[in-house]
Amino acid sequence: MAPINVAIIGTGIFATNAHLPALTNSPYFAVKACYNRTKAKAEEFAQKVSPPLKVYDELEDAFKDPEIDLIDALLPVQFNLDAVKLAVKYKKNIVIEKPIAAHLDQAKQIVQIARENPEIFIAVNEHWCYLKAVIELREAIKKIGKVVGFNYHSTGSFNFNNKYLSTTWRQKPEHVGGFLSDGGVHQLALLTSVLGNVQSLNARTTQVRPQSGDVDVVWALMKLESGVIGSFNYGSAFGNKEKKGFFEILGDNGSIYYDFSPKSGDRFILRTGGLTAESEKTEVEKKIENENWSVATEFEKLGLELNGNKGNITCFPEVAFHHLALVDAMVKSSAQDAATVSIEKP
Amino acid sequence: MAPINVAIIGTGIFATNAHLPALTNSPYFAVKACYNRTKAKAEEFAQKVSPPLKVYDELEDAFKDPEIDLIDALLPVQFNLDAVKLAVKYKKNIVIEKPIAAHLDQAKQIVQIARENPEIFIAVNEHWCYLKAVIELREAIKKIGKVVGFNYHSTGSFNFNNKYLSTTWRQKPEHVGGFLSDGGVHQLALLTSVLGNVQSLNARTTQVRPQSGDVDVVWALMKLESGVIGSFNYGSAFGNKEKKGFFEILGDNGSIYYDFSPKSGDRFILRTGGLTAESEKTEVEKKIENENWSVATEFEKLGLELNGNKGNITCFPEVAFHHLALVDAMVKSSAQDAATVSIEKP
Repeated sequence: MAPINVAIIGTGIFATNAHLPALTNSPYFAVKACYNRTKAKAEEFAQKVSPPLKVYDELEDAFKDPEIDLIDALLPVQFNLDAVKLAVKYKKNIVIEKPIAAHLDQAKQIVQIARENPEIFIAVNEHWCYLKAVIELREAIKKIGKVVGFNYHSTGSFNFNNKYLSTTWRQKPEHVGGFLSDGGVHQLALLTSVLGNVQSLNARTTQVRPQSGDVDVVWALMKLESGVIGSFNYGSAFGNKEKKGFFEILGDNGSIYYDFSPKSGDRFILRTGGLTAESEKTEVEKKIENENWSVATEFEKLGLELNGNKGNITCFPEVAFHHLALVDAMVKSSAQDAATVSIEKP
Repeated sequence: MAPINVAIIGTGIFATNAHLPALTNSPYFAVKACYNRTKAKAEEFAQKVSPPLKVYDELEDAFKDPEIDLIDALLPVQFNLDAVKLAVKYKKNIVIEKPIAAHLDQAKQIVQIARENPEIFIAVNEHWCYLKAVIELREAIKKIGKVVGFNYHSTGSFNFNNKYLSTTWRQKPEHVGGFLSDGGVHQLALLTSVLGNVQSLNARTTQVRPQSGDVDVVWALMKLESGVIGSFNYGSAFGNKEKKGFFEILGDNGSIYYDFSPKSGDRFILRTGGLTAESEKTEVEKKIENENWSVATEFEKLGLELNGNKGNITCFPEVAFHHLALVDAMVKSSAQDAATVSIEKP
């Protein structure tokens, strides 16, 4: 198996701290080159591995390079569309960072390009799509009767030391919904990977912190395409509070309580029974060991996929479009006094 | 201090199990008489104390009786308006059961009658208005900076053994929203007693159990008159799940997590700080001892109020109207695909 030669474009904090180690530790990839708009940063990045990476002068050079099999794009998301266009132009496989784009019009173009160019591999790096919890919960759901509703909750204190906060593209966001499309798409990826797509929503958003650059908290009421109803609460901009994440799925013959709060670890309780007075009740707690919170798993799956093992990668542009479309709908709904907004399709 | 002589009208399960013991154990009251549409039931009820109670032939007799100071009405709520009209006609003080009425038009009339007859004491027996938590949380809120939002959550399994389920007025509800105005108004009383009135909401309701007679689950998105936003989830019709109640209030300089789940007891955690990177963080857990979950406290407060200690009773018709108006808005919003519905004023 020849390694997949990778060029990293965009050599910021996440490329340095997460992608580069994941790719260099993977048996599937060999990082060969990099590009950054500020070339000095690319050159510094290039020295982090041995032998040092090739550094391009121009973004397009990465796509032209015949040595490269895959572009790993970590650009401010408003440039994702340009990168995808270049990938198609030069017939190069590409993975882009979440959210898929800054706005739905860009995201639609990416989906359209992906549909029209099936020979190019285009995917979105959304590692929450690859959580073990997704598979576990989808299995567990089969045991709780008719699913009636859900509560998805993820809240935390504002983190003044968040190193990502100081990046220009976050401070002056061009992407819709600021924190909602930045951090929120993770949550929405988990929610929809488990329960399916959302049909419409109502939302109220607010901005608690000037540092957020845009809205940073949302309360939403959702109706899924399946008819299931529920609430989605997200915000990490509050004052002192316990960081808390739970995803509760309620059926007429049982329920699932998945707790992904840091304090609780990754575990869920599956309770069955209750459809009738006589139905047998069971309760099982399951710990999810070594949950895939890092990006390593997503690159593992990417390596398998690009080596012909189809089905490992699920976060293709149409899927990531939905996550951004939910944020877009939240912002629109809130601007219209929480009116019911249908989720756009690409 | 002469005891307040009470006639109980409506001698069903709750009168027998809750009101009669609370009234007879109170230093303020003497239960003297009763009425029930099925006279045999009133006669049976009359024998539960010694000396046995006087039994009226007609409802109106209770209001005419010069020995009686206060009518304690536990009628199916669609008859509350008629009882209030009789109270005014005969200048008799009255407390009616929650919800205030079956429908908003009836509730509006009760509010109007109360406004026009301030010399008659008319109140609604909503004991959640008198929880210690209400006072504790209102104090705690002062310490968390600007209140940003809230999550109110109360869910449980369907209880097939609920003795109240088999009552005709619940099986074939004339009151709006079925379980939502029956059990839900308790939750709404707590929510609004702490955070103030709701301006508008969006809701999706569903009915999980045929036994409920009407809708039994709601997810709602709320905007309060104060501008605070949040979610309200309520339903006790699910399959096997842990009975869970929490009320989280989020500010920019702290948060409150009040847990009223049976398993956790009645306690809340007040966390302060977080407005800036430098603001001092504190965390205090407070157990609420002997919370006023029974109706005894509400009769204690009623006794004080009727003995001239004003301010003990807060659940007057205008307040209880708001609780029912919220349920009415939930049902309307859900019927209109979760459209934003403003809360009616009496």
